[in-house]
Amino acid sequence: MGITLKQAQAAVQAAHDKALQMGVKMNIAVVDSGANLVAFIRMDDAWLGSLDISIRKAKTARFFDMPTGDLGKASQPGGSLYNIEHSNGGLITFPGGIPLKNSEGQIFGAIGVSGSTVEDDHAVAEAGVRALQGQ
Amino acid sequence: MGITLKQAQAAVQAAHDKALQMGVKMNIAVVDSGANLVAFIRMDDAWLGSLDISIRKAKTARFFDMPTGDLGKASQPGGSLYNIEHSNGGLITFPGGIPLKNSEGQIFGAIGVSGSTVEDDHAVAEAGVRALQGQ
Amino acid sequence: MGITLKQAQAAVQAAHDKALQMGVKMNIAVVDSGANLVAFIRMDDAWLGSLDISIRKAKTARFFDMPTGDLGKASQPGGSLYNIEHSNGGLITFPGGIPLKNSEGQIFGAIGVSGSTVEDDHAVAEAGVRALQGQ
Amino acid sequence: MGITLKQAQAAVQAAHDKALQMGVKMNIAVVDSGANLVAFIRMDDAWLGSLDISIRKAKTARFFDMPTGDLGKASQPGGSLYNIEHSNGGLITFPGGIPLKNSEGQIFGAIGVSGSTVEDDHAVAEAGVRALQGQ
Repeated sequence: MGITLKQAQAAVQAAHDKALQMGVKMNIAVVDSGANLVAFIRMDDAWLGSLDISIRKAKTARFFDMPTGDLGKASQPGGSLYNIEHSNGGLITFPGGIPLKNSEGQIFGAIGVSGSTVEDDHAVAEAGVRALQGQ
Repeated sequence: MGITLKQAQAAVQAAHDKALQMGVKMNIAVVDSGANLVAFIRMDDAWLGSLDISIRKAKTARFFDMPTGDLGKASQPGGSLYNIEHSNGGLITFPGGIPLKNSEGQIFGAIGVSGSTVEDDHAVAEAGVRALQGQ
Repeated sequence: MGITLKQAQAAVQAAHDKALQMGVKMNIAVVDSGANLVAFIRMDDAWLGSLDISIRKAKTARFFDMPTGDLGKASQPGGSLYNIEHSNGGLITFPGGIPLKNSEGQIFGAIGVSGSTVEDDHAVAEAGVRALQGQ
Repeated sequence: MGITLKQAQAAVQAAHDKALQMGVKMNIAVVDSGANLVAFIRMDDAWLGSLDISIRKAKTARFFDMPTGDLGKASQPGGSLYNIEHSNGGLITFPGGIPLKNSEGQIFGAIGVSGSTVEDDHAVAEAGVRALQGQ
């Protein structure tokens, strides 16, 4: 089954709650299995440039079914996927994008978060991932 | 004051409620005064191609501070703004995008809706506009 | 000789003065003989979507060394240049863009204006053209 | 309050004066809080390729509310934001873009300068920043 709007909004809401708790201002995006946007929010005064980055992180995580940071390890100079960022109209390969799984453990979308350090971005994205576990 | 996420979400929610009531499946987008996305949802099974259209409608409505359908009247063959759609990376000039105003009557964003007939799209967008009146 | 920044600014200033006198809010762009931007201003509260249009009008006027409105007459359905707007990354072919000539009568750039009716846009652009006559 | 054209032109003029004094040929761009262009000039014989770079620097500085050079420190190979330049249609992350603040200390736009060494670009941009301090 594909991700529903209700599920996407639950992931966004959980990530939003986590961001408020951490005191960070985030852009939060969820895409479906086709890597197409399902839900998005930009928190007040969040970096404007993170709008695009959050969506690209979600797409990148679904494009390769792995956290964006994992892909980034291989895209460095000398790495096996050097400059893969040039594909797909522009990838973002640092942390903050994570695949989302349905109750059967199948990837059915991804969440992308941007607006703070990459560690914060990843932590907020993880809150979105957890919100869908067991659903 | 710029549009807040809370206000943008209130507009999206009201439009979503209206769409459910009408039995139509919509993509709903809200942009701020800089024409940058603040909130977005795609309802289950809504047309995938309407994702991009809903965002372009919201941007177009803010770009020219008028409902998208008004602009479309002037962009027809022989009209004074023929083929204006080629500007700004692609405009959408049929109904479904409407400016959003703050409590002082100033335009501070716009809503764009796509997924059904242009009449339905416009009606759903109007529900979003009404949700912010008096706030 | 190519258009100088001083000349481009004189054209922008004259157009700006004309817009203030007419009570309209304009985006005003001047490009050189290579169709590359030399000077640009956006008046307070001018339509945001006219930013891109004013630059495209200036480019279009220089691309074909004629007022944009003249090109638009031939780009209508059934016309000899039908949908020429698809070229060059997007042309604007309604009035508001006019070539600029140096003191020897040679075209050395163009001005593009957007923000009101096409008649107003053209009138403001003409003020920019006149500012360079005899210089 | 958003940046006014008068303020944007004051920043451009101050940067232009600085460039003349330093004997460098610059492209100078100012964007508003929505990262949309407000004013631009290209000095005579300035690098043509710096036209686009100056605008991207201004946008980048506003996108992340920091000097472009600061972002560039984190986007190097192995850095936490490696290849962030692929987002937002293309960022420029070396020095020359700086946020602009209003009299209350709030960021309400940015200036971007390109045409010489990045040290010169940054120095000229700083002259634009100083012109708005206390206004």
